Amino acid sequence: MKLKVYADRMSQPSRAVIIFCKVNGIDYEEIKVHISKGQHLTPEFAEINPMKQLPAIADGRFKLFESHAILIYLACAFPGVADQWYPADVFKRSKIHSVLDWHHSNLRRGAESFWLKGNGRFLLGGNQPSIADLSLVCELTQLEVLDEKDRTRLLGPHKKVQQWIENTRNATNPHFDEVHRVIMLAKERQQHQRLKAAKNEGGSNMKKPLVSRM
Amino acid sequence: MKLKVYADRMSQPSRAVIIFCKVNGIDYEEIKVHISKGQHLTPEFAEINPMKQLPAIADGRFKLFESHAILIYLACAFPGVADQWYPADVFKRSKIHSVLDWHHSNLRRGAESFWLKGNGRFLLGGNQPSIADLSLVCELTQLEVLDEKDRTRLLGPHKKVQQWIENTRNATNPHFDEVHRVIMLAKERQQHQRLKAAKNEGGSNMKKPLVSRM
Repeated sequence: MKLKVYADRMSQPSRAVIIFCKVNGIDYEEIKVHISKGQHLTPEFAEINPMKQLPAIADGRFKLFESHAILIYLACAFPGVADQWYPADVFKRSKIHSVLDWHHSNLRRGAESFWLKGNGRFLLGGNQPSIADLSLVCELTQLEVLDEKDRTRLLGPHKKVQQWIENTRNATNPHFDEVHRVIMLAKERQQHQRLKAAKNEGGSNMKKPLVSRM
Repeated sequence: MKLKVYADRMSQPSRAVIIFCKVNGIDYEEIKVHISKGQHLTPEFAEINPMKQLPAIADGRFKLFESHAILIYLACAFPGVADQWYPADVFKRSKIHSVLDWHHSNLRRGAESFWLKGNGRFLLGGNQPSIADLSLVCELTQLEVLDEKDRTRLLGPHKKVQQWIENTRNATNPHFDEVHRVIMLAKERQQHQRLKAAKNEGGSNMKKPLVSRM
């Protein structure tokens, strides 16, 4: 029976799991659960994940939730996943656990100054991404839906973080871009709405700054 | 070189790591870092953990922080740790990751109804505790410092949770009680202060209820 991945691509941990499956050639079926429509709150989905959160997987009769646990499971249970993603080496693996645990509560605080130290292209100084890179970068790409001004304010000063996001994107493309397409569409919709709202609100006194901003 | 554990026994994840070492006969040196005195903010401790959080370990030149990552590392890197704590079986192990990840953000919500289902004495239905039991129970024992009334209100209705705490305590004693001693002392101190404050505040109209409560 094919692995089932219950996901909403609008949610960052869902995207991390889907990209991981695609990059590693894991044969899976994506079952879309739309959070905006409340589909994660149905009794049917509670059968899969009683905590009613996404993502979740069902591999035969084995069910699992929490995206980090899922990524680790997939790295261990499916053949052909490169060691880089979840290294067998106990020291490297422990550092990945540490990043993932830290991610839960502290993302961005100190990320650049500590995890991205040295000349490595990825977290922990490596030259290839691990599940920690994938998970954290998918979290950060949620910032894409922000207004360009806010996004620049948040990420602008962090050149190393921007480069790391780009490295992870390049290492996992074309899947990275494909899975993030919904986020980009949401961003376009929001920009469109902001523009429309500004036009509707704006009398003659608003026209000038609006034009100059465009 | 002996394993160094940097800990403050007033903090729940520090206690989980110390109990784990004791129960599994891991030879370690406990280095007390008092959060109340700001000792975790010193440049010396930042050398051990740049995130300035407790607990942290140094095993030779290998340094690690985040309590779940530490528990997993200890279970994997030290001989003689029973399989129950972090089972080699990929399905059991994945469930432990799931509990630990979920613990980060959701402790107590749904714990009884989902994780403690069935007749198992521990999480995931087992008859022996895992690192998930130890970590979550140490979190819950932080409630000990609460006023008895508040503690009863929070834990009182959850008989299964109370039984599970007791099971985990029994399975890890005498270490469990020894490591929790600071919490019990803090509780006594707080009770003493509450009593003193009540006496000082209370005029003749306060005496009656105070006496009846004792």
